[in-house]
Amino acid sequence: MNETIKYLLDETRLPKRWYNLVADLPAPPPPVLHPGTLQPVGPDDLAPLFPMSLILQEVSGEREVEIPEPVRQVYKQWRCTPLYRARRWEKALDTPARIYYKYEGVSPAGSHKPNTAVAQAFYNKEAGVKRITTETGAGQWGSSLAFAGALFGLEIDVYMVRVSYNQKPYRRALMEAYGARCVASPSPETASGRAILEKRPDHPGSLGIAISEAVELAAQRDDTKYALGSVLNHVLLHQTVIGLEAMEQLALADDYPDVIVGCTGGGSNFAGIAFPFIGEKIKQGKPTRIVAVEPAACPSLTRGMYAYDFGDTAHLTPLTKMHTLGSTFTPPGFHAGGLRYHGMAPLVSHVKELGLIEATSYHQTGCFAAGLDFARAEGILPAPEANHAVKGALEEALKCKEEGVSRAILFNLCGHGHFDMQAYIDYQAGKLTDQEYDPSELAMALSGLPSVPA
Amino acid sequence: MNETIKYLLDETRLPKRWYNLVADLPAPPPPVLHPGTLQPVGPDDLAPLFPMSLILQEVSGEREVEIPEPVRQVYKQWRCTPLYRARRWEKALDTPARIYYKYEGVSPAGSHKPNTAVAQAFYNKEAGVKRITTETGAGQWGSSLAFAGALFGLEIDVYMVRVSYNQKPYRRALMEAYGARCVASPSPETASGRAILEKRPDHPGSLGIAISEAVELAAQRDDTKYALGSVLNHVLLHQTVIGLEAMEQLALADDYPDVIVGCTGGGSNFAGIAFPFIGEKIKQGKPTRIVAVEPAACPSLTRGMYAYDFGDTAHLTPLTKMHTLGSTFTPPGFHAGGLRYHGMAPLVSHVKELGLIEATSYHQTGCFAAGLDFARAEGILPAPEANHAVKGALEEALKCKEEGVSRAILFNLCGHGHFDMQAYIDYQAGKLTDQEYDPSELAMALSGLPSVPA
Repeated sequence: MNETIKYLLDETRLPKRWYNLVADLPAPPPPVLHPGTLQPVGPDDLAPLFPMSLILQEVSGEREVEIPEPVRQVYKQWRCTPLYRARRWEKALDTPARIYYKYEGVSPAGSHKPNTAVAQAFYNKEAGVKRITTETGAGQWGSSLAFAGALFGLEIDVYMVRVSYNQKPYRRALMEAYGARCVASPSPETASGRAILEKRPDHPGSLGIAISEAVELAAQRDDTKYALGSVLNHVLLHQTVIGLEAMEQLALADDYPDVIVGCTGGGSNFAGIAFPFIGEKIKQGKPTRIVAVEPAACPSLTRGMYAYDFGDTAHLTPLTKMHTLGSTFTPPGFHAGGLRYHGMAPLVSHVKELGLIEATSYHQTGCFAAGLDFARAEGILPAPEANHAVKGALEEALKCKEEGVSRAILFNLCGHGHFDMQAYIDYQAGKLTDQEYDPSELAMALSGLPSVPA
Repeated sequence: MNETIKYLLDETRLPKRWYNLVADLPAPPPPVLHPGTLQPVGPDDLAPLFPMSLILQEVSGEREVEIPEPVRQVYKQWRCTPLYRARRWEKALDTPARIYYKYEGVSPAGSHKPNTAVAQAFYNKEAGVKRITTETGAGQWGSSLAFAGALFGLEIDVYMVRVSYNQKPYRRALMEAYGARCVASPSPETASGRAILEKRPDHPGSLGIAISEAVELAAQRDDTKYALGSVLNHVLLHQTVIGLEAMEQLALADDYPDVIVGCTGGGSNFAGIAFPFIGEKIKQGKPTRIVAVEPAACPSLTRGMYAYDFGDTAHLTPLTKMHTLGSTFTPPGFHAGGLRYHGMAPLVSHVKELGLIEATSYHQTGCFAAGLDFARAEGILPAPEANHAVKGALEEALKCKEEGVSRAILFNLCGHGHFDMQAYIDYQAGKLTDQEYDPSELAMALSGLPSVPA
């Protein structure tokens, strides 16, 4: 009863290199296109937004990228994150499955986001950047970059989706505690923000709009760059530290996953746990099933088109080929704010097209129910985003029970829910519903996709 | 730059026994008295409230008490907690001090409280108890017992100080997420609650009242016991796992503290880090200074009387000799709710009287300022309670700088501030003031102390 099985790596065994899945893919990902010329972008096109070191990572084909020593120093504060065998939950579910979860909520910001925030802050600092602009939805990313900015002495300006800015003052307060500036988006500080406010002064904002604002400001100033918390190749690269550690930890357990589950918004925590195992699948023919779980109300991987699209609303970003619901699509206001994005990481989309991963979607109330059951068994209350991974793992565990088969299930518990208690209050009060997106709005958003010749 | 120095013990080196300071004290602590007879209470007097195993720990003179295997299993989920050398903060302060902090915020409830909650839940479960009643102020303790109750299959009823119940819905939501029942106190469920509500229906409540309610209910039902989150000897005993680990971790660092700092409300986190070192001080004559930091608005150790007093408002508890502001004293509503208690752990009070520890007090704005500076250097945002320890460590570090001396300072960072963001919002908006207690109210409360012949 109440057995705890925890696997940790000592400091000498922490990963020294991130893993770049691109090197092992059977087909290269489609190029990123300049929206004006429709030609592949080169490093110079991205130079106004990112330091060259990150641009080179974005296009790198090298299998391994060294984690700089100053980044590893900061990682050490909370890494290795624990890998647990969920013995108590297994018993509660009466399943023969062997369930493992990697817990990223032990970081100072409470989620996996600092893995890339710290790396991005380091490379920007090294390039002489003084200020970084970014967007945030629920605030996990903004608070992580604020944390990293404090450690590296960078000014951080966060454009936070207005509805979240108003609904989640505590995430905002965390950013401000770390010394960052947090602005409600759309804001009067940018042309793209002003254009939207003129039409609708009370606009609730969206991740796409906030990206436009942050990108616009970064492009204007030499001492300022932009940072994105998900979607891009270099962000996914930094998150592979999760899967690399998990692989070593599972070796300590003398086990290997039959199924890997992660939740997907922009794709970074999913890629973080999954990509190293996808590499093994390709190179060694491992039969691992890899399942992306997304919210049914914002189902880019399961209901979107695989097409070139903008990453933002004002169409300031390059075009990337990805599963998208259309850059003008506004998902319903469900609680997993970190999963409310119209697109999917191009690299995650690409491996989906290659048949290397599966995708499924669940509505939020089922995810909260799974999250609460998990919390009462394992003692950790997951973030609403992470509840989607919990739900995915639960369904796999129940399948094992039905079939009478013991499979090893690994999932990523990407953050704790201590900043999301209002969602739990609403759920327990029966106030949460399973919102559906508007199919006609989706059709309209998809019809507006940019036209790119094949 | 950004160097991280972290010390962890592997599972084989985790403490197997708690440390009981009573065994090494030069004088035994004064007895606990029955309020009716004024004679020392025996185990049978306490049996309606606690399982016998905990009562025996409460009066034990044994130096070491074995940590039961099922408790160690749950501890393993988050223990060993990290001991950090605060290199970044040292540099920001430009101090020659070597600052170490033990970080208890990695527990699933975000504080040190599960160390005793898990133990108490285990012993109650073992004794056949079905339900535990308790009180909570800010909610750290209530959510920790709720967590432990979920793991051991116990019903948990938490009487939460009404003003906190209303102001801190997220702590309450965490308890409910773990399946506990949370009731605003004073409540109509008890005679002591009803008596207060009759006089004043909008009474804001106090820890003393909530204790009365929880004790009253536990005493009425055979299947129900009571649990306290601080103050009592057995609670402090369970928390010594903090200091025992820290001592081993400092040995890894090849260092030993010259000064140890902890914040004190009821005294449990302070005792947890300090008692094992006080034992060394007594046995080996180590010159370690040990500093308790309390809020200036509720200064039991620095301004209270050392006298017999009740632990609760309705005077249902036994009498213990402690530093007290009087059981009717109502401290101002400052933000470190976990430190708003009229009394001090009898054992902490006793070692203060023996000259083994010092005590000091700070106002809250200085503590928040210290906490924010710490967060920006070290990346971890402390709970308002823990900010008092941060402030104490800061003052010691500045003394080292003034004197040009390098001393090793160890402090306990007993919890993270993710549930306390409103306090940070208020502080950063300049809305927090340094409240003073009312001296005439203190005089009145002290004049009402029970009369106990010497």
